[in-house]
Amino acid sequence: MSGGELLASQITEAIRSVVGAGPKALHEPTFSGNEWEYLKECLDSTFVSSVGKFVDQFEHDLAQYTGAKYAVATVNGTAALHIALKLAGVIQDDEVLIPALTFVATANAVTYCNAIPHFVDSEESTLGIDVVKLRRYLLDHAKIVDGQCVNTLTGGIIRAVVPMHAFGHPVDMDGLIDLASEFKLVVVEDAAESLGSTYKGKHTGTFGRLGALSFNGNKTITTGGGGAILTNDSELARRARHLTTTAKLSHAWEYRHDEVGYNYRMPNINAALGCAQLEQLPQLLEAKRDLFFRYQGAFNKVDGVQLLSESNGCSSNYWLQTIILNADNSRYRDVVLEATNEAGLMTRPAWVLMNELTQFSAMPSMDLGGALSLSKRVINIPSSAYLGTGNQ
Amino acid sequence: MSGGELLASQITEAIRSVVGAGPKALHEPTFSGNEWEYLKECLDSTFVSSVGKFVDQFEHDLAQYTGAKYAVATVNGTAALHIALKLAGVIQDDEVLIPALTFVATANAVTYCNAIPHFVDSEESTLGIDVVKLRRYLLDHAKIVDGQCVNTLTGGIIRAVVPMHAFGHPVDMDGLIDLASEFKLVVVEDAAESLGSTYKGKHTGTFGRLGALSFNGNKTITTGGGGAILTNDSELARRARHLTTTAKLSHAWEYRHDEVGYNYRMPNINAALGCAQLEQLPQLLEAKRDLFFRYQGAFNKVDGVQLLSESNGCSSNYWLQTIILNADNSRYRDVVLEATNEAGLMTRPAWVLMNELTQFSAMPSMDLGGALSLSKRVINIPSSAYLGTGNQ
Repeated sequence: MSGGELLASQITEAIRSVVGAGPKALHEPTFSGNEWEYLKECLDSTFVSSVGKFVDQFEHDLAQYTGAKYAVATVNGTAALHIALKLAGVIQDDEVLIPALTFVATANAVTYCNAIPHFVDSEESTLGIDVVKLRRYLLDHAKIVDGQCVNTLTGGIIRAVVPMHAFGHPVDMDGLIDLASEFKLVVVEDAAESLGSTYKGKHTGTFGRLGALSFNGNKTITTGGGGAILTNDSELARRARHLTTTAKLSHAWEYRHDEVGYNYRMPNINAALGCAQLEQLPQLLEAKRDLFFRYQGAFNKVDGVQLLSESNGCSSNYWLQTIILNADNSRYRDVVLEATNEAGLMTRPAWVLMNELTQFSAMPSMDLGGALSLSKRVINIPSSAYLGTGNQ
Repeated sequence: MSGGELLASQITEAIRSVVGAGPKALHEPTFSGNEWEYLKECLDSTFVSSVGKFVDQFEHDLAQYTGAKYAVATVNGTAALHIALKLAGVIQDDEVLIPALTFVATANAVTYCNAIPHFVDSEESTLGIDVVKLRRYLLDHAKIVDGQCVNTLTGGIIRAVVPMHAFGHPVDMDGLIDLASEFKLVVVEDAAESLGSTYKGKHTGTFGRLGALSFNGNKTITTGGGGAILTNDSELARRARHLTTTAKLSHAWEYRHDEVGYNYRMPNINAALGCAQLEQLPQLLEAKRDLFFRYQGAFNKVDGVQLLSESNGCSSNYWLQTIILNADNSRYRDVVLEATNEAGLMTRPAWVLMNELTQFSAMPSMDLGGALSLSKRVINIPSSAYLGTGNQ
């Protein structure tokens, strides 16, 4: 047996020992609460669209759960991030610092503002923005002019920074907030993957001026498709509601819109599902944490592989359980992916780095050595909450 | 009683004689088919998001119903129109001819392409683009250069024309297609309001290179939020699927995207609702047609008001029943709107013209005398399908 085959077989065995027999998806939702009741109530009311009580309820419940003063529910996380960036003041030709190691929506949302993604490196302990390295980079390549951060290489304004809490693991937010303050950057959090994750007791997505959540089908809780904008600023919340509902002015019958708006508000039927799902979030998080501990037991016995655990002061939602191969095992990544998927255990690597995608290859970037190394070594393994309860 | 009060009272009485007692919404959906069953099946499968059998089924059923070769389901009609315009080749600084008398989504979708809405007049019989007047305008203000239509005033390329089938009434498509051919314009149909409407036996949305449908909560059938792109071109359909699903390349595990894409595909749970709704469309259309005939009987007795009926060769879905005040009654429009709404009968005028919105006031425009006159005289009245069956 070659080194790769041996590693693949040990990893397959470790996963199998936790999840039991049969094919296992990467992440499946659990519908075991009031989903059916709320959907029925929604249909019976005939208000299935973007007006309706479940949208209000879902926004209220989300605000309460996350501790954000306001939540505005959207059709998906990409839409939430797009509007959050707009409301953060990102305009045409601005640069926005985002991790290269992220889902493509982060970069796409920047381009929807006709702005430029500027790629930032990630670090090993959280998979998030390497704040120390970013600070060195900005000290070398940015200066503050009239209270704005200017890229001395391109001459563009660096308007904002978007920490993305990868697979649910909170970024070093103390460091990031300090850095943003030093360099006059607006913080917009991409918390699409981190509903339920906290940093020093505070929910991710509530540190920046705005944050974005996602409730896609593969997320910890789902509304089919859905997202939300979080903010503590009442005026930004009002603007978010306005922009996501075609910027229509309130009137008994007149259809007047006062700026270019979007059809981005969450439909009531999706919010009905969301209300039921959110009620179950504490139990789902507990099950996902249990799954982490069970994987920890199994992977302790596998050399050359590390199971990613939450950092000090952080509570991860463990959305996607993540193993990281040691550097000298990175050459075996695809062998491991093939073997596990062939065994019916759905696994996947981290995303192809944003700067490696043709459409973003000409965008500005700092050195991405950390992200590049991680992208060759990270593997997500089956993570559904129900696997944590032993009810496989 | 003043002239306005008399007219308002006659109109209120005419509507009331048809719809019966109690408050009546402008348009409410009917859920009396397999909605429950399909939603339950969707939840039980756990595939509620943008992968799932109901999305495929809904697209198949839509294509079959409309006669389009391909249908691609989207999160809403705005998203469908945005992608349709992109696939029609609309790029930055292009001009796109759209009616000034339309819902704001038509203009917004053009701006999402960084293109320029160029406003066109509407005519009385269909409320759609005045093809004869538009031809005279283009003969005066456009020329063909290298096979492209150039606006001689702005120097911009006029890339496309977007007929919008207002309230379900088909535009004069023979005239429009000829005009588009003469001036080298791509036709993209905004059929958001016209599911079930045909022109000379052919479904609206299938005449242009691409068409856009909507299934918003106020439409003839609804998916909560939803839309679809129609096309007969397999390559455009493939591109539409690709662009609406983040432009991700198919791969067992790799996340690679080959262009800036969108999170625009319809979630499976919304498509489940759509499949059930589409099964009931023929009966809903019949009921809405019955409602038209009942309103016709009632409004025959009201002087100075005309109920809008389908043109020769057209079959309207009668999405929103529409009365048009005679010119000398236009000053009473707001009195009528106030009286009917106060009586619990929800009515509304046509949209504020696009050129009258601040964000579009500087856009190019032809003379809009027809649209202006109509915008002062059009009133939509309660139109739910269930009102047509006598089951008030």
